[in-house]
Amino acid sequence: MAPPSTVRVPYKSSFISCPALAAQGRAFSSSRCFKNESKAASAGGTIPLGLFLWKRIQQLGVRTVMGLPGDTNLELLHYIGSTDMHWVGNSNELNAAYAADGYSRIKGCPGVILTTMGVGELSAINGIAGSFAENVKIIHVVAATGKAAQEKRVMIHHTLGDSPDHRIYAKMSSSVRVSHCYLDDEATAVAGIDRVIQECYVQSRPVYIYIPVDMVHKQVPESALSIPLSLARSSEKEAEDRATHAVLKAIYESKNPVVLVDSLILQFGLRPLVRSLLDQLQFPTFCPFMGKSVIEETKPYFHGTYNGKFSYPGIQEAVEEDSDLVIHFGPLPTDMNTGGFSAKIDPRKLLLVEETRVILRGEAFEGVYLASFLTRLSESLNISKVPEVKYLTLPGPPPPDKSEGKETQITHSHLWPRMGKFFRAHDIVFADGGTTHFGIIDADFPDITYVMQNHWASIGYALPGTFGGAMAKRDLMKSKTHGWNGVKGDGNGRVIFITGEGAMQLTVQEVGSMIREGLDVIIIIINNGGYSIERCVVHPEASYHDIATWNHKHMLDFFGAKDGAARTHQVRTKEELEKVLTRPDFENPKGVHVLEVFTDKMDFPWRLKAFGEAYREMKGK
Amino acid sequence: MAPPSTVRVPYKSSFISCPALAAQGRAFSSSRCFKNESKAASAGGTIPLGLFLWKRIQQLGVRTVMGLPGDTNLELLHYIGSTDMHWVGNSNELNAAYAADGYSRIKGCPGVILTTMGVGELSAINGIAGSFAENVKIIHVVAATGKAAQEKRVMIHHTLGDSPDHRIYAKMSSSVRVSHCYLDDEATAVAGIDRVIQECYVQSRPVYIYIPVDMVHKQVPESALSIPLSLARSSEKEAEDRATHAVLKAIYESKNPVVLVDSLILQFGLRPLVRSLLDQLQFPTFCPFMGKSVIEETKPYFHGTYNGKFSYPGIQEAVEEDSDLVIHFGPLPTDMNTGGFSAKIDPRKLLLVEETRVILRGEAFEGVYLASFLTRLSESLNISKVPEVKYLTLPGPPPPDKSEGKETQITHSHLWPRMGKFFRAHDIVFADGGTTHFGIIDADFPDITYVMQNHWASIGYALPGTFGGAMAKRDLMKSKTHGWNGVKGDGNGRVIFITGEGAMQLTVQEVGSMIREGLDVIIIIINNGGYSIERCVVHPEASYHDIATWNHKHMLDFFGAKDGAARTHQVRTKEELEKVLTRPDFENPKGVHVLEVFTDKMDFPWRLKAFGEAYREMKGK
Ligand SMILES: Cc1ncc(C[n+]2csc(CCOP(=O)(O)OP(=O)(O)O)c2C)c(N)n1
Ligand SMILES: Cc1ncc(C[n+]2csc(CCOP(=O)(O)OP(=O)(O)O)c2C)c(N)n1
Repeated sequence: MAPPSTVRVPYKSSFISCPALAAQGRAFSSSRCFKNESKAASAGGTIPLGLFLWKRIQQLGVRTVMGLPGDTNLELLHYIGSTDMHWVGNSNELNAAYAADGYSRIKGCPGVILTTMGVGELSAINGIAGSFAENVKIIHVVAATGKAAQEKRVMIHHTLGDSPDHRIYAKMSSSVRVSHCYLDDEATAVAGIDRVIQECYVQSRPVYIYIPVDMVHKQVPESALSIPLSLARSSEKEAEDRATHAVLKAIYESKNPVVLVDSLILQFGLRPLVRSLLDQLQFPTFCPFMGKSVIEETKPYFHGTYNGKFSYPGIQEAVEEDSDLVIHFGPLPTDMNTGGFSAKIDPRKLLLVEETRVILRGEAFEGVYLASFLTRLSESLNISKVPEVKYLTLPGPPPPDKSEGKETQITHSHLWPRMGKFFRAHDIVFADGGTTHFGIIDADFPDITYVMQNHWASIGYALPGTFGGAMAKRDLMKSKTHGWNGVKGDGNGRVIFITGEGAMQLTVQEVGSMIREGLDVIIIIINNGGYSIERCVVHPEASYHDIATWNHKHMLDFFGAKDGAARTHQVRTKEELEKVLTRPDFENPKGVHVLEVFTDKMDFPWRLKAFGEAYREMKGK
Repeated sequence: MAPPSTVRVPYKSSFISCPALAAQGRAFSSSRCFKNESKAASAGGTIPLGLFLWKRIQQLGVRTVMGLPGDTNLELLHYIGSTDMHWVGNSNELNAAYAADGYSRIKGCPGVILTTMGVGELSAINGIAGSFAENVKIIHVVAATGKAAQEKRVMIHHTLGDSPDHRIYAKMSSSVRVSHCYLDDEATAVAGIDRVIQECYVQSRPVYIYIPVDMVHKQVPESALSIPLSLARSSEKEAEDRATHAVLKAIYESKNPVVLVDSLILQFGLRPLVRSLLDQLQFPTFCPFMGKSVIEETKPYFHGTYNGKFSYPGIQEAVEEDSDLVIHFGPLPTDMNTGGFSAKIDPRKLLLVEETRVILRGEAFEGVYLASFLTRLSESLNISKVPEVKYLTLPGPPPPDKSEGKETQITHSHLWPRMGKFFRAHDIVFADGGTTHFGIIDADFPDITYVMQNHWASIGYALPGTFGGAMAKRDLMKSKTHGWNGVKGDGNGRVIFITGEGAMQLTVQEVGSMIREGLDVIIIIINNGGYSIERCVVHPEASYHDIATWNHKHMLDFFGAKDGAARTHQVRTKEELEKVLTRPDFENPKGVHVLEVFTDKMDFPWRLKAFGEAYREMKGK
């Protein structure tokens, strides 16, 4: 058996503040963010380890746990009933992992998933990998066989080969998490749990907790629930001082600065902080794909999406040539996010504010952490010294195809600007991959929360992701609190999910969970008869781009809705589209509604067409 | 980059026979089993590596390839069009892996799955693990980024973290295969492919082929397609001689021998051989769970399922006490297969014929392989020396519940014997986990082919598994050949899939593939309002055993059937059940038909109830 890796960490007695949360105007102290359990915990009182785990997780703000039961996890699962958390039995484990990811992105606490040994955890692995790739906090709990069965290497169901290692799966998934613990010993279990929770937060990535079934009922001190957790990463003081000084100086001295707001701002819950910082700076601002929705696009200083040579006319020049300082907050320099690496900014004028360091004109300040540094920067800014920079005048989108406007058929160039108008403040929008990835960039976003798994790009993510997001929203509404990144818990705004009909096939069963939980969701299916994005890559007419043709009219009824057909609208023309988008139940959805938009299989967003060639390059031909 | 592991294997110039196939009466020689490509291959002619791969795979008898496209695999996928193989785009990669497994179990060649790097292969991993656990031959082909992109560790979509390793996923899945190759070099690629194919066969487990996209079009000698493959494992001659001698002696001297036919007989395609051997021996024969369907249950010497203390009355005694020799062919000593390890046979009277050795009364003959040994044994048997053993007289099944027979409602004790009568010779029956696992044992099988993923026991397997099995059957019918294990390719027999409504939710979208491919399948859903098997383990009324309630009446219509509702029958009483089972379109299904059987959520098969306690023990409490 692998040795337990639960190492007791020395808890700091003093409370460490969390800039990410503080930035949202929420005091973060052990007494307010964590339920005080001290009353229940009589001196020397103990509780079962399984219950401790869930109570600790609940303290993080988690109200919904995703997953599937299985014989080794039932007893652990049972303890959820003794908390204020809600168990969602998902339709399968991959969907559960995606849902936990969506939950975390909206609520800000980790998404939590419970699976059974082997079959459950391996089914979830691709979802966890996505959370790893995109810095989403996940706590994956796996309940396994008892220690005795493990030591004897019993050939129980869900094991591999003779004399099986019951922990082999934990090893298989080690690359998609930042920390794990095996809860083999009640003396170290509490510290193990706290250590991995802490790593989950500071690295903003998945962690893994493995509990043998015979450990679930073992007693641990209840008082351990009152130990404060250190969830924030504080920078090296000296490095941060120097970085702040240097960066302020660069900002004050700049003449044509521009700002790029990117992925990690969202993933570290820093949107409110960055918004208020930019309201002060008023520098011309752009977003790479993954920074979309960081800034309200109605702001006068917001000038659109910067995606290297696949940007609107003038943008690449404005960023790469006309500026003397490019401030890039929370970069994720992936292919998709950089226009297939066509985004090229001279390092001599570049300021990168990364996850664990700041790099100014090539000089790196290591150990300076994103949340900590941005908090410090905004506190230190002397607004009177900030240069006044003119907003830019840019040509705007490339002219639409000539036929556009005359056609009655719905095209990408019509659809996306229209979707931008359909969105309204406080909407939560999840979108899946495919042509949508490139098309939705042309929708101007009001103050919405937008989630797309851009980098891991595992299609099918967004449907269960939306389910998780909608659960998070409901949990926020119940507790009348606000989520991170400014997500409002006051019931304003809708949950909207946009997908290709291809991506949707991978994970469609989670529509049943939406209906079962009584969630209000608008599902928009772009049906273009197969995998259009792939048609754009090679041999557009090849039959492997075709997929099974489903009849979405029956979807809601199949998944248990009462009046599914009436809630499903299929549109082929702009006029029909208009009628549905302006329906009162699309303004204020109750339950699940479906809009299926038929487009031509050879109609691609302009940006995808342009990307085509670079795309082929990128993959290494 | 990881070093290429393509090592040139020295091809034996002489042809090695394959006992498994020979046993089915099929000559197995390079000229008959493999298409002779020599005409097409002009001396010194070359073909693209991608095409070579598919042509080599086609030679194995593969006619259908499962998987999903993705930008890195499109060019490889395109070459399938230049073979006689059919590409199935599945709904998701887990389903594709399950489908490939089902295909292999019916057709006998490997199941083949093509996925894209990262997102695709990780989604499939749990399916591949199941094939590993249950000795099913799978060739998993992953097409990835180009070598240059890999060397530069480009941060392309589907990668993890900064400076990503594009082969990390191959490492993550290393525990669920027996061999792999990275096709990095055209000089060694052909040998690499042949080596892994060979391992796939001899170990009867998954293998993995990784091809960077820039290698797909590289030229390799076409003549390499004529190199014979060595797909069988020949025993150590001397050990097999000794084992055969000792085993024959033990058989000839035995007075009360019994035979157990088990899992590996099916997995190594030895059913016809074992059947003819037993027709000669006429010894009383039993099957563990996983050996069900090895023997036609109408045979006078067949006496039912041996599952330790969870057997029909008298069986455990007959096997464990009254016999003087227990001949166990192809054992898989898992918890489920041994009545929770309650099956206990004195080693002093036990003969185990395992995958790689024979153990007679504690004496092991290593390096004696299952197929080779069984072939040898049946050839060497002197029938005149075989003792004549009386068939047993056993009490039969335990008496049904008192209420049984009076109730109009459908119960497990009514359902399963009735299903046994519904099945007819040459049916292919796939069943999923849950209560079915324990209930279906009470169905007496005519000469059917039965597949259940008993050991890996990943629910949701059987729906895509059935899809794969039905594709295999269609491929057999097209080519008018017989599959292994005696599966008939003459169109006789139906494809039947039995599932709990819970298990079905995990992978339901593959119903769309069945409809798209125009397959004839009977789907029988046992709807008992949630996860009944888990209710039997703990807290039967707990809400986590409940699941989303779908309306299966709409299922076929949703997935694209023309007249789905009319093809769907929902029954609550025995009488209603009878009416559907005797419908002409259930005798001779065209297209997909659904029968939904409602049972009580607290109704469990007797064997599951008895198992309950042992089950709790097993997992290690
Ligand atoms: C899990 C997974 N499998 C396969 C892919 C490859 N892939 C990327 S986009 C796409 C097609 C998406 O089709 P659809 O959702 O219909 O969108 P469209 O481009 O047609 O608008 C595929 C198969 C992937 N990214 N993830
Ligand atoms: C992938 C996977 N997830 C979870 C489990 C645990 N599990 C085993 S049986 C079962 C319930 C099956 O329910 P259903 O198909 O409705 O059958 P029933 O027992 O109700 O007849 C579950 C959740 C599993 N075996 N595999």
